[in-house]
Amino acid sequence: MINMEEIDPWGNGLVEYANLFREFGMQKISPETAKRLAKSRLFRRGIIFAHRDFDRFIQAHDKGEPVAAMSGIKPSGEFHLGSKMTAEELIFMQKEFGAKVFYAIADLEAYADNGLGLAEGAENAVSNVADMLALGLDTKNAYVWRQSNEKRVMNLAYIFSRRTTLATLQALYGERNMGLYLSVLTQAGDILLPQLKDFEGPKEVVVPVGADQDPHIRFTRDIAQKFNSEYGFVTPCATYHMFFRSLNGETKMSKRDPMNILTLADEGKALKQKLSNTFTGGRATAEEQRKLGGETEKCVIYELMKFHFYENDEDLKKMYEDCRSGKILCGECKKIRIEKITEYLKAHQEKKKKMMEKARKLVDGSGE
Amino acid sequence: MINMEEIDPWGNGLVEYANLFREFGMQKISPETAKRLAKSRLFRRGIIFAHRDFDRFIQAHDKGEPVAAMSGIKPSGEFHLGSKMTAEELIFMQKEFGAKVFYAIADLEAYADNGLGLAEGAENAVSNVADMLALGLDTKNAYVWRQSNEKRVMNLAYIFSRRTTLATLQALYGERNMGLYLSVLTQAGDILLPQLKDFEGPKEVVVPVGADQDPHIRFTRDIAQKFNSEYGFVTPCATYHMFFRSLNGETKMSKRDPMNILTLADEGKALKQKLSNTFTGGRATAEEQRKLGGETEKCVIYELMKFHFYENDEDLKKMYEDCRSGKILCGECKKIRIEKITEYLKAHQEKKKKMMEKARKLVDGSGE
Repeated sequence: MINMEEIDPWGNGLVEYANLFREFGMQKISPETAKRLAKSRLFRRGIIFAHRDFDRFIQAHDKGEPVAAMSGIKPSGEFHLGSKMTAEELIFMQKEFGAKVFYAIADLEAYADNGLGLAEGAENAVSNVADMLALGLDTKNAYVWRQSNEKRVMNLAYIFSRRTTLATLQALYGERNMGLYLSVLTQAGDILLPQLKDFEGPKEVVVPVGADQDPHIRFTRDIAQKFNSEYGFVTPCATYHMFFRSLNGETKMSKRDPMNILTLADEGKALKQKLSNTFTGGRATAEEQRKLGGETEKCVIYELMKFHFYENDEDLKKMYEDCRSGKILCGECKKIRIEKITEYLKAHQEKKKKMMEKARKLVDGSGE
Repeated sequence: MINMEEIDPWGNGLVEYANLFREFGMQKISPETAKRLAKSRLFRRGIIFAHRDFDRFIQAHDKGEPVAAMSGIKPSGEFHLGSKMTAEELIFMQKEFGAKVFYAIADLEAYADNGLGLAEGAENAVSNVADMLALGLDTKNAYVWRQSNEKRVMNLAYIFSRRTTLATLQALYGERNMGLYLSVLTQAGDILLPQLKDFEGPKEVVVPVGADQDPHIRFTRDIAQKFNSEYGFVTPCATYHMFFRSLNGETKMSKRDPMNILTLADEGKALKQKLSNTFTGGRATAEEQRKLGGETEKCVIYELMKFHFYENDEDLKKMYEDCRSGKILCGECKKIRIEKITEYLKAHQEKKKKMMEKARKLVDGSGE
């Protein structure tokens, strides 16, 4: 049985990563894979730390087979750093492996889970897709759809429901309403859509997700096997990244707690305020910190730079050493990082602005 | 709590009609309504025996408001006499009240329930729709859709799922797989589709069904009320017909038991064979029957003629009297009725043949 406190895709608790290998059978990213894919800071820094069958995906690519990468977003607001991470992973798979990107705008799920109207979802989706474009998505090798506009996904959800017992869903997710169970079936439809004949049939598909999304992956892998004889589905593989903590360091970063997330749309005073309040690894007194150094492992600012805002390892190393040695204290450190983050976001927002029109066209024409 | 043996839309048990009024709050068709609608043999003979809020539907029509009639079919085979009855009711509502007919081809449900592929479902649907046309459907005032091709229905199912607990579904239907629960939500989507803005918004919609389908009606009426503030849904009303017995008289006529149903495609020797084997109300010996008369209330042949094949009450009355008086015995009686039924079906099949092309176009273009 799963401990829902540990791994709940709809919750925001913290996961004990060790358990994921022990209890759920995720595989560790091998040193060879990390090395091969070191141009991605996420692989290089061990932020993508686990996978299921990702080696098979790489082998397929190396044999010249077509591969795809799939993920999605609930269009319930601006891109936060978690969505950014997934987007970067998809784009990396596109660049590195020539993977076709499949991107689901989970507007039905946003409705079921957050009560978000479909029209509002479509509006948010334009902004989300513009973020994807600004981050480097190549639309020539991508397919974007809204769940509410993609019959094939809903038909798959229906088809899968026939061989899904309540007991399975209850064991994986606990007692939920029908909307959440239906979301699970729909996600399985989203994940397996790239393998339909309309998209050139069965193939290796990697799904980059946060570790907390693993129940969806396991469910979908089971479904793929159950329907293998009818559809020829290849069991989808997955990579898992560590999730990003909320700015106060207490939980996973989640749209459910808007004051504690950083979004790609944050700017100006509000951004500065958020970052100034962010939890760090400072000691009780300045003296103590000068003597012992800061605790980077507790510091959300350090995590921000490591996961997102320092591309160059040297910059990160310097930050780490300056902190651990007690050379600079949190106030001064924050000032430097706030500047860097503000600069990054400003540049992103400018790029994004130019992408809005293209994104709108893509969302309006998304699905069939 | 519902006794599933009594009223189970997926089963084929017999219903105690009295319970339906007592336990489930159906209303009896009033003598005034039966009189007003006497040109329909189903109302005239009390075969449509109950309703929910049908009086409201009639009032709306009388006030000049637009009304609609909705039903559907699982395209899992040929029209049997139950499907014919529903079709005739829809067509009657169209003629009598100018109701726009909404007809769902429940191909996703046929998949979930019977494992029928969508392509095969579409093929059967052509034949089913041709039956509807031969029975008199006016396509100028009708909308036909396949569930797999009608995003709006699936989107509604999703929306409804958000406020549907498992407990509700378990109480109504017992422990089922997700496919059947999803069918229930999809049916609610089918039933409420006619009230979307795309179809000129909220209105009175009557759903003619067999009495065993009442759980779906009650579920959908609850949903309509729950979502009234967002969609303005008028609670749909329903009329209920007695279900038709299987030819052996033991259960409800159901596609699940193909040897015991009569379909509109039956013909020739096989038809004759089926009808010859049909259960009647004969006595133990010919002498006894001449003395006591036959038992029409047990006779499936009598039911066939009453429900379907004698339009003229005089013909039915003569059959009844000849039987009850012992004037004719089952063998002779059957011969006469078999001739009548064969003739009816032959005429229907000829009419239908001419409708196939039109039906194909309608199904291919069905949904959006």
